[in-house]
Amino acid sequence: MANQEKSSTPIGSMGKFGLISHITRKVVTANKSTVIGVGDDAAVINSGNEVTLVSTDLLLEGIHFNLVYTPFKHLGYKAAIRAISDICAMNARPEQLLVAIGISSRFYVEQIDELYDGISLACSRYKIDLAGGDMTSSVTGLTISVTATGSAPEKDLVLRNGAKPNDLICVTGNFGASYMGLQILERERKLFSKDRSFQPRLEGYEYIIERQLKPEFPAEILDSLRKTGIRPTAMIDVSDGLASDLLHVCKLSETGCRIYYDRIPVDMETIRAAGELGMEPVTAALNGGEDYELLFTVPLENADMIRTIPDVTVIGHMTTFDQGFNLVNEAGSEIELKAQGWEKG
Amino acid sequence: MANQEKSSTPIGSMGKFGLISHITRKVVTANKSTVIGVGDDAAVINSGNEVTLVSTDLLLEGIHFNLVYTPFKHLGYKAAIRAISDICAMNARPEQLLVAIGISSRFYVEQIDELYDGISLACSRYKIDLAGGDMTSSVTGLTISVTATGSAPEKDLVLRNGAKPNDLICVTGNFGASYMGLQILERERKLFSKDRSFQPRLEGYEYIIERQLKPEFPAEILDSLRKTGIRPTAMIDVSDGLASDLLHVCKLSETGCRIYYDRIPVDMETIRAAGELGMEPVTAALNGGEDYELLFTVPLENADMIRTIPDVTVIGHMTTFDQGFNLVNEAGSEIELKAQGWEKG
Repeated sequence: MANQEKSSTPIGSMGKFGLISHITRKVVTANKSTVIGVGDDAAVINSGNEVTLVSTDLLLEGIHFNLVYTPFKHLGYKAAIRAISDICAMNARPEQLLVAIGISSRFYVEQIDELYDGISLACSRYKIDLAGGDMTSSVTGLTISVTATGSAPEKDLVLRNGAKPNDLICVTGNFGASYMGLQILERERKLFSKDRSFQPRLEGYEYIIERQLKPEFPAEILDSLRKTGIRPTAMIDVSDGLASDLLHVCKLSETGCRIYYDRIPVDMETIRAAGELGMEPVTAALNGGEDYELLFTVPLENADMIRTIPDVTVIGHMTTFDQGFNLVNEAGSEIELKAQGWEKG
Repeated sequence: MANQEKSSTPIGSMGKFGLISHITRKVVTANKSTVIGVGDDAAVINSGNEVTLVSTDLLLEGIHFNLVYTPFKHLGYKAAIRAISDICAMNARPEQLLVAIGISSRFYVEQIDELYDGISLACSRYKIDLAGGDMTSSVTGLTISVTATGSAPEKDLVLRNGAKPNDLICVTGNFGASYMGLQILERERKLFSKDRSFQPRLEGYEYIIERQLKPEFPAEILDSLRKTGIRPTAMIDVSDGLASDLLHVCKLSETGCRIYYDRIPVDMETIRAAGELGMEPVTAALNGGEDYELLFTVPLENADMIRTIPDVTVIGHMTTFDQGFNLVNEAGSEIELKAQGWEKG
């Protein structure tokens, strides 16, 4: 479907250091704090009077991506977004990115170029610097490890453990789109693997497929919150799934929660795809994961102000811990909110 | 040979977040700069008036380790050493470690415990904090990504590009031991795979096998250099191989080099193992890799002083770039020093 082998320079022809020089030749830095970027043992960051943040993520072929339908450029972009979102979710500015990849000899230099083109595109879009990494051979496909750093005045940090009972539970964007995009891609891949002349039909699913392959992160919402003077009490990026990540905040904040089924934002394409595949849209929204949206809580007195920020939805409120974790369904009855298990990375 | 499956708790029984809580329950922090460690989106570091350093490494099953003869605890220890050595090689203090792992369902919780026990042991030995990470399922064995951070006053940093012609080329410890340890382990593994009743004979190779499985990093040499007032002009940790890493420093410093065959420190066990396997000990020393020693250059006027530091050997000197990269052999003739290709990660 994607990634036909039109490219022609085998990885082995270049050698590790040749490939590193090749990849890093175009790297320019944008952040004053990047004292030393690629090329030495470690990246050097000047964080002045602020605190430095570091986050790391691992993306594995066959778990986090399938190269049959994932263009390398999108994959690089998504890997960067994944790391950036962890820094943003603490209300900090992402600044540097370190990328380590493991590649087997079945790949071509051109594919690795595309991967780094995607990383560079995300770096330039989110104003961060590629500042280091590692490169190694692999016997088991493509492995990508992404580490992001960032900084913030310590007083501005928003942690996962600060929510209080009665705080409003807010989310950005919508949920389940990435997951349903993946289901559509998987459906077409299975048809394609049975019949190689099959032409995948992806029309009408552009939005949810883009959410899966090339997600964006709502960094601008953090600016809006700052401008309106709203300081969230707790915040997390939704990557494991809305239910799972909300329960995380509840457990760390020692609160319960009550969210409303019909307030969870779900896009029309997500609803249509779920319908076709016989799935419940809200299940995809609650448990799908890879949404790269923000979930945050704000004090009740911010209720009017928060509604003035576009693309933010209040889906419920925090309760005391002994009230448990509740989802109020369309009929008005409460069911227990549960997180998925080990299924997703 | 190692790692019989005496352990009994399947990974899947615990779930991702259960396993993360299980692993992080014993984590305590030692560095004042660790503002927030495991448990939030990112680690938070207070670097005060110093610069922060970040380095990342990737270790893949089948490339960097073979679980047939690598105990999980040693593997964790070595992964930590690998990341720490990059920070030390810039003359900085390592402070935080972030570890992301990908694990398939064939592993047991007890094995992952051992892995983290090894990481913790290295953390406590080198006084660093496990401050974050990621955990994901894998379809392709064990993947470990390690990110280390550290700090230093900016003026203390020693980069790879500061060597000058006539500077002395110094190394710590000895070379080729880890590589020859690996060759012995591989020899025994092959015999074992043909005959399961075979008992591996590893006596007499304890030192080189330990260098392969549980290396240490000569962090104390950095203290000695500081105490004697010697400031290296360039420094690198030797992980890819002595020849390859020296050439790195030469290229970045725009110098040539001349090193002497008979000055390269090689342990007796390394020489004996090389003899048995019909290999040249100096070839193992120059190209073996995974030595986790330091290579650094100092001005010629430090010649007397540098010889007072135990465990440091002067193996040659820098020249002008146009004089090339030379190895003077036992007969006194010069041959060109070359780096290995893609073979090792």
